[in-house]
Amino acid sequence: MKRVATLPQSRIHALHCAQCQTSYSPFELQSVSPCCQQPLVADYDMSWPLTPGAGINLADSSMWRYGALLPLLDEANKVTLGEGLTPLLTLPRLAARYDLHALLLKDEGQNPTGSFKARGLSMAISKAKELGVSGCIIPTAGNAGVAMAAYCARGGLSATVVMPRHTPEAFKEECYWYGAQVELVDGLINDCAARVRQLNAGGELLDISTLKEPYRLEGKKTMGYEIAEQLNWQLPDVLLYPAGGGTGLIGIWKAFREMKALGWLAPEAALPRMVAVQAENCCPLLETYLGHQPNCHNYTGRPTLANGLAVPRPLGEPLMLEVLRESNGTVVAISEEGMLEGMRELGQQEGLFVAPEGAAVWMAARKLLAEGWLHADERILLLNTGNGQKYMSNVAGRAWA
Amino acid sequence: MKRVATLPQSRIHALHCAQCQTSYSPFELQSVSPCCQQPLVADYDMSWPLTPGAGINLADSSMWRYGALLPLLDEANKVTLGEGLTPLLTLPRLAARYDLHALLLKDEGQNPTGSFKARGLSMAISKAKELGVSGCIIPTAGNAGVAMAAYCARGGLSATVVMPRHTPEAFKEECYWYGAQVELVDGLINDCAARVRQLNAGGELLDISTLKEPYRLEGKKTMGYEIAEQLNWQLPDVLLYPAGGGTGLIGIWKAFREMKALGWLAPEAALPRMVAVQAENCCPLLETYLGHQPNCHNYTGRPTLANGLAVPRPLGEPLMLEVLRESNGTVVAISEEGMLEGMRELGQQEGLFVAPEGAAVWMAARKLLAEGWLHADERILLLNTGNGQKYMSNVAGRAWA
Ligand SMILES: Cc1ncc(COP(=O)(O)O)c(C=O)c1O
Ligand SMILES: Cc1ncc(COP(=O)(O)O)c(C=O)c1O
Ligand SMILES: [Zn+2]
Ligand SMILES: [Zn+2]
Repeated sequence: MKRVATLPQSRIHALHCAQCQTSYSPFELQSVSPCCQQPLVADYDMSWPLTPGAGINLADSSMWRYGALLPLLDEANKVTLGEGLTPLLTLPRLAARYDLHALLLKDEGQNPTGSFKARGLSMAISKAKELGVSGCIIPTAGNAGVAMAAYCARGGLSATVVMPRHTPEAFKEECYWYGAQVELVDGLINDCAARVRQLNAGGELLDISTLKEPYRLEGKKTMGYEIAEQLNWQLPDVLLYPAGGGTGLIGIWKAFREMKALGWLAPEAALPRMVAVQAENCCPLLETYLGHQPNCHNYTGRPTLANGLAVPRPLGEPLMLEVLRESNGTVVAISEEGMLEGMRELGQQEGLFVAPEGAAVWMAARKLLAEGWLHADERILLLNTGNGQKYMSNVAGRAWA
Repeated sequence: MKRVATLPQSRIHALHCAQCQTSYSPFELQSVSPCCQQPLVADYDMSWPLTPGAGINLADSSMWRYGALLPLLDEANKVTLGEGLTPLLTLPRLAARYDLHALLLKDEGQNPTGSFKARGLSMAISKAKELGVSGCIIPTAGNAGVAMAAYCARGGLSATVVMPRHTPEAFKEECYWYGAQVELVDGLINDCAARVRQLNAGGELLDISTLKEPYRLEGKKTMGYEIAEQLNWQLPDVLLYPAGGGTGLIGIWKAFREMKALGWLAPEAALPRMVAVQAENCCPLLETYLGHQPNCHNYTGRPTLANGLAVPRPLGEPLMLEVLRESNGTVVAISEEGMLEGMRELGQQEGLFVAPEGAAVWMAARKLLAEGWLHADERILLLNTGNGQKYMSNVAGRAWA
């Protein structure tokens, strides 16, 4: 915790299957829904009033300030490194350059372990600890594995991280410093997932794969709460997010809907149009969205500088498409060269050394402005999901075009 | 800024020479004192009351929440990436391992650009902008240069960074991404300082060397304010800090004294004993402290994994010695191997991948505990000044002993 603070009473009361709505207990260890093998989603009791004043612990400068709307029951199980409440920055120089009315960036690179993955893993490992788990395993494109290794070390759990062999060394090395077991696989994250099933056939370890346990999503959603609170409950018109597995996009949208139910956002207020940003090298969501394929089940992707976007077959595809539909959003894919250009522009103009995923988001905004889907007078919010440092070996020498 | 917030009226009213106390204007561009060529130190008007409630802008989750006690006059000149209000973490697993009553760590690695240097440079570049400067130059061991490059980009100023050639590539590369000029020098930071004087003989650029301009110190001191606020105005018994140029140590102590003058700390409350942690490879302060030399003026150091501690002749030596004397503190030096051991222990036990400087601080605590200078029932606060990532090329493959 950033400040010494006690956790408010959690209002969690159920988990439901994202496909058929069947209810399950949030007080027992769960993975995907037994009914449909789909993600389980947490529900909170909203039947009695909760004002922002009562629901937000202002003395806590981390994501745990929203504890009433998070699933942890006992403070003693909290595994935290101070994640969340990241800065929401204005980008005045880029706004001037492109003649934009309001351009904002939430810098998730300032989280512990250098990415927004810290939120999901802090939550998942805290719940794992609360439910008596002693070891965890994860297939990862990089950042999630680093975060899991850190939070497992912090909580005293064992960690096994399975990542593509081509992932930059910095990701693997950081896992070693946390004492994790690292397993390298030829292929992308779906190949890592297969290896995880093999390694954990006996089920000794908790599988922390995206959306295969219910709580990473709850950590991720805190980005949505923070955006609303930091903007004084006036959401932007458009929010751009780099979507791989999709928990960020789905989680932020879940937060917006919860805040409507709570009355923290006005019932008539429009929610932002949500833009999923992908890499041209791996854009299953775009292909499905455009009707080029019925779904991502047979999609094959290629590696990209933006490791986090190399997710060819995301389990959360239906949920992501739902967010895009409900919000009148869209999908954009960015080239490798485009990401480097975005990194240069954010670095030189605004002093931000972002992950390629974050750079892709800015380039997507430029693309949508050029196409007229986005308008210069709209309030635009970019999510930078990670710091650029761990990608250094992939981008070194490319600071100048 | 993390939250949209206006800056309170600054109470700055003078600068004084650290040696002879002569006053200078805080409203004009200054470097060292014209009288003694010594650091200039900022003074604030404390003659009328200021409560924490009035003096701290709680809506601002960055170091700028203490704006009344900072030197910036106009919000419009603020150059910020959301620095400060970093987490203050308990280290329960290390505490249990060494049977300690209360072990805390402030994680400055979560700042923009990955180190506490962000605070000083945000402040210095903001003031440079306010005073009409268009370009800055800095000799650096690494982190300060990266931070200066970032804040100059953010503020639209040109940046020239002069660093030792042996500095890990990651530091240089990050500067390039911010569009800075980087100049490499054979030697340590004092050799870089000589090169800066040469490059800037005409004085076109503002020299941002440690303590050669008055405002980096003001940024650094916010660590002291945060520690007090985060601990509910109950300071720890002992505070350990990695001292190179010394602004951190001097700045934190300045904050403690200001808070006493303000009445935010009880007049009778003991202040922490301050421990300056150095590298065995470069420990000028220790040598002077032990009486092996009259001062550091002829000290020669060697490179160390902890780049930030390779400062053989710090201008702030007299001020650091004063802090140690006034606080009943001490100096400790740590070996290269010791730093690696500290990194491993913080990584594996607490999920923190720290800079070697931060690891040295923890090893210093262990040493002082073993020697009986520190007691297991004291409240111990470690400052981790940076994230480990940029040091990766120096420590890769060393995660296991
Ligand atoms: C930096 C970064 N951005 C974005 C993503 C995509 O994450 P998700 O779609 O699961 O929220 C990842 C995943 O690895 C990542 O590491
Ligand atoms: C990580 C880190 N720690 C500590 C220091 C020492 O800083 P100072 O003594 O100037 O506060 C530095 C300086 O470069 C640094 O980069
Ligand atoms: Zn079902
Ligand atoms: Zn003087």
